[in-house]
Amino acid sequence: MTTTVAGTAYDRLLNLHQEGSLLGSTAEILSWDQETMMPSGGLEYRSRQMALLARLSHERRTDPRLEELLNEAEAEGHAEDSPEHAQIREIRRDYEMATRLPADLVEEFAKLSSVSQHVWADARKNSDFQAFKPHLEQLVELSRRKADCLGIPEGGERWDALADTYEPGMRASEVAAVFEPLRDRLSNLIKELGASSNGPSNAFNEATIEIDAQSTFVREIATAFGFDFERGRLDRSVHPFCGGSHCNDVRLTTRFQPTEFNDALGSTMHEAGHGLYEQGLPFSMVGLPLGEAISLGIHESQSRMWENQVGRSEAFWKWCAPRAKEKIGAPLAHLSFEDFYGGANIVRPGFIRVEADEATYNLHIMIRFELERAIIGGDLAVADIPGEWNRMYKDYLGLDVPEDRVGCLQDVHWSMGAMGYFPTYTLGNLYCAQFFNTACEQIPGLEDGFSRGEFAPLLDWLRENIHRHGRRYSASELCLKVTGRPLSSDPLVDYLENKLRPLYGI
Amino acid sequence: MTTTVAGTAYDRLLNLHQEGSLLGSTAEILSWDQETMMPSGGLEYRSRQMALLARLSHERRTDPRLEELLNEAEAEGHAEDSPEHAQIREIRRDYEMATRLPADLVEEFAKLSSVSQHVWADARKNSDFQAFKPHLEQLVELSRRKADCLGIPEGGERWDALADTYEPGMRASEVAAVFEPLRDRLSNLIKELGASSNGPSNAFNEATIEIDAQSTFVREIATAFGFDFERGRLDRSVHPFCGGSHCNDVRLTTRFQPTEFNDALGSTMHEAGHGLYEQGLPFSMVGLPLGEAISLGIHESQSRMWENQVGRSEAFWKWCAPRAKEKIGAPLAHLSFEDFYGGANIVRPGFIRVEADEATYNLHIMIRFELERAIIGGDLAVADIPGEWNRMYKDYLGLDVPEDRVGCLQDVHWSMGAMGYFPTYTLGNLYCAQFFNTACEQIPGLEDGFSRGEFAPLLDWLRENIHRHGRRYSASELCLKVTGRPLSSDPLVDYLENKLRPLYGI
Repeated sequence: MTTTVAGTAYDRLLNLHQEGSLLGSTAEILSWDQETMMPSGGLEYRSRQMALLARLSHERRTDPRLEELLNEAEAEGHAEDSPEHAQIREIRRDYEMATRLPADLVEEFAKLSSVSQHVWADARKNSDFQAFKPHLEQLVELSRRKADCLGIPEGGERWDALADTYEPGMRASEVAAVFEPLRDRLSNLIKELGASSNGPSNAFNEATIEIDAQSTFVREIATAFGFDFERGRLDRSVHPFCGGSHCNDVRLTTRFQPTEFNDALGSTMHEAGHGLYEQGLPFSMVGLPLGEAISLGIHESQSRMWENQVGRSEAFWKWCAPRAKEKIGAPLAHLSFEDFYGGANIVRPGFIRVEADEATYNLHIMIRFELERAIIGGDLAVADIPGEWNRMYKDYLGLDVPEDRVGCLQDVHWSMGAMGYFPTYTLGNLYCAQFFNTACEQIPGLEDGFSRGEFAPLLDWLRENIHRHGRRYSASELCLKVTGRPLSSDPLVDYLENKLRPLYGI
Repeated sequence: MTTTVAGTAYDRLLNLHQEGSLLGSTAEILSWDQETMMPSGGLEYRSRQMALLARLSHERRTDPRLEELLNEAEAEGHAEDSPEHAQIREIRRDYEMATRLPADLVEEFAKLSSVSQHVWADARKNSDFQAFKPHLEQLVELSRRKADCLGIPEGGERWDALADTYEPGMRASEVAAVFEPLRDRLSNLIKELGASSNGPSNAFNEATIEIDAQSTFVREIATAFGFDFERGRLDRSVHPFCGGSHCNDVRLTTRFQPTEFNDALGSTMHEAGHGLYEQGLPFSMVGLPLGEAISLGIHESQSRMWENQVGRSEAFWKWCAPRAKEKIGAPLAHLSFEDFYGGANIVRPGFIRVEADEATYNLHIMIRFELERAIIGGDLAVADIPGEWNRMYKDYLGLDVPEDRVGCLQDVHWSMGAMGYFPTYTLGNLYCAQFFNTACEQIPGLEDGFSRGEFAPLLDWLRENIHRHGRRYSASELCLKVTGRPLSSDPLVDYLENKLRPLYGI
């Protein structure tokens, strides 16, 4: 684990990179601890610990010896299709990303976004966009400078440089090319469903269930999916997340409310999906690109697959509904199979992204994408966001936004300066549907197996085709390699239409 | 928190020292996590994270800039009785301790002790001292070298240099001077109690109580003692300990068995005592000597006070017994006050230190002290340990040790190379009894208040007289300052005689 003079430049490069990762993974454990375990009094000192780790970690990620070793390792002539080549390419990428931003810009950004998050939180509470506006204007300005430092790809735009930090290689023009047909078909589907008077019953979502019983049940589901509790945990937190430090220590959290069993279940399946990806990364590559997830979009494709393609499927509920009735008893005793399966699949346009169902969710994302692309591109003034937001919600979702609190002020992302992040959610859904189609083609009886609690064939397929590669391939390369086709919106909408129309009696 | 050029040398010294502490405190959170939360699969990578943090932390503690700043700060002429003077003195001490050991010795020691612990664990299981002997011989040899590097105090012996790392300034000759009268009076007391046929009932220790109920109850006791759960936690672990990272994030653990309520209660009160000391250290001095505990002995004086002087007192049980009956119900319903108070105070010589009662415990320690002093001093060969051990157990405790597994192989300490550590346990008991005597003199009705659940007067007194000072005074200075007398064995034996004789009808 220490830097040795022996070995090839490639070996020494890996050693040096891994040491930097060790500090990063330490910070990840402290982050998890902060959200789940730390007493409130610990916050002030924890922020000092985190700041030091961030500084030391940045020093290592920008260590000039990395540049030297990269040059030497590149000159060693590793074959283009070798893992070594991919490893060097990705370490180069990380190094470039870390060194391109000048320290003063990073610091200015960190300060502004820290203040802006507080201002945003108050502005949201008071539904007061004007209070947030000057900060958002500064964040946009700084984001543009950041994009210029990171480097705009040839033929691309500033937004691309920002999005690249979350979804390497993704461009606004490509996102738009996939989102546009998706938007049209999805809007139509949602209108169709909304017009139906034969929607599913909401009875499942109205049941009140003891939190201990919910907790035991969701843990069993995560176990059934293949989440390895010898190499992971499941705890509670205010906002569910998947943390931890590496593939052998993956930490999921979920949340519980007595009347929100479906939310706890969905959140757990979602985070377990992230966790299964993390547990599937190779420990031999820990702390190296080939031991890391490709992108936020690919990560999300894994969480969504277990949450939606598995966890909202008819086959899954054939297995899950009787188990839930058996384990939880009275509160669910009166429900039919249709109540469970239908209740998990209700589509209802609403104002709030994080409460959205599987279908309307993507429209929330598209609105944010179009807005932030226009803002960063200079085609929309920050002052005009609320008007545009409300117009689009009317247009896409048929909703009249009553106030900015439930409109353009609802999400934290922009106040953190995270521009280019939102689309990764829908990209995840798209990759997910396309991967799942291929899995179904390649594994006979895959979905049918869910009705018998057989989830291992899917997990094995994901391990083999996606997880074990780490960052060896880019997201688009992986998509082509696994599915034989570039990313398309058709698999997702086909899947939604095929499932939802019958549930709505269409 | 970062090193600035501005300010006095003293200020810069504090900044630099605090940064080193930040890394150490990060490692402490990871340690706690490892014992309580980490999935077993995380161990391998965690050991790499810990090794890196240890290395970075050592680099900072031996940073040559510390030496420069120490020289400059010492030249600033801070008054001898000022906090600044104490701060500099203690940073100097830490720096000297960190720099005196050559890196190759530290590494050799770490490797040997790591291997020796495994060998010892097997040797204990098989009661095979011969298997452990060669490793212990090497550890003794290395410990002697370590002592020579650390520096033997004038007129002292090698053991002193080793003990100094746990109990600064303590010498074998002083320990022996206090332990000898203690041993004589204690042996007599234990013989007296053993000869009595009117000992307390064991009924309390035979009750079976649900672990959830135990857990809720011990948490309430910790709260009643004043442990602040906004600045701390209580969890379960195999071996109870007090961890965390600083005064606002103190993490206790305890253990539960259905039939060992008294053990869970005692362990919790003990660890809460450590935790109350930690929470009483000043946050303004976090990461600095004046924000740290003085020594293991003084730390132990705090844990023992809440476990014994409070938690095994008649007054405490007047308050606790009815509460325990009320909260826990049926399993305790048949017990009288005498069953609780007596059951918490049974004295019974046994082979195992960690299972020993409040009185015999100290004899276990004295045996270890005398043996390790002789081994390090060259007056006893490692090969002769079992024989000497067994002879002393017969002599001090009247027991015939049947096998080394429950004899000289029972404790992990020597296999870790921790020579000079054991006496801090009994020094803690001695400081504790002497401090508590003074507290009783200075606070009218102190013990009586325990019977009404009034523990704040004791905590306030400890905060004022001990906790808030950090490492400003040495243990012996503090003892003199607080109690007006040097450390003596009388308060401890007086306390034990006064409590135990009546309980045994003497």
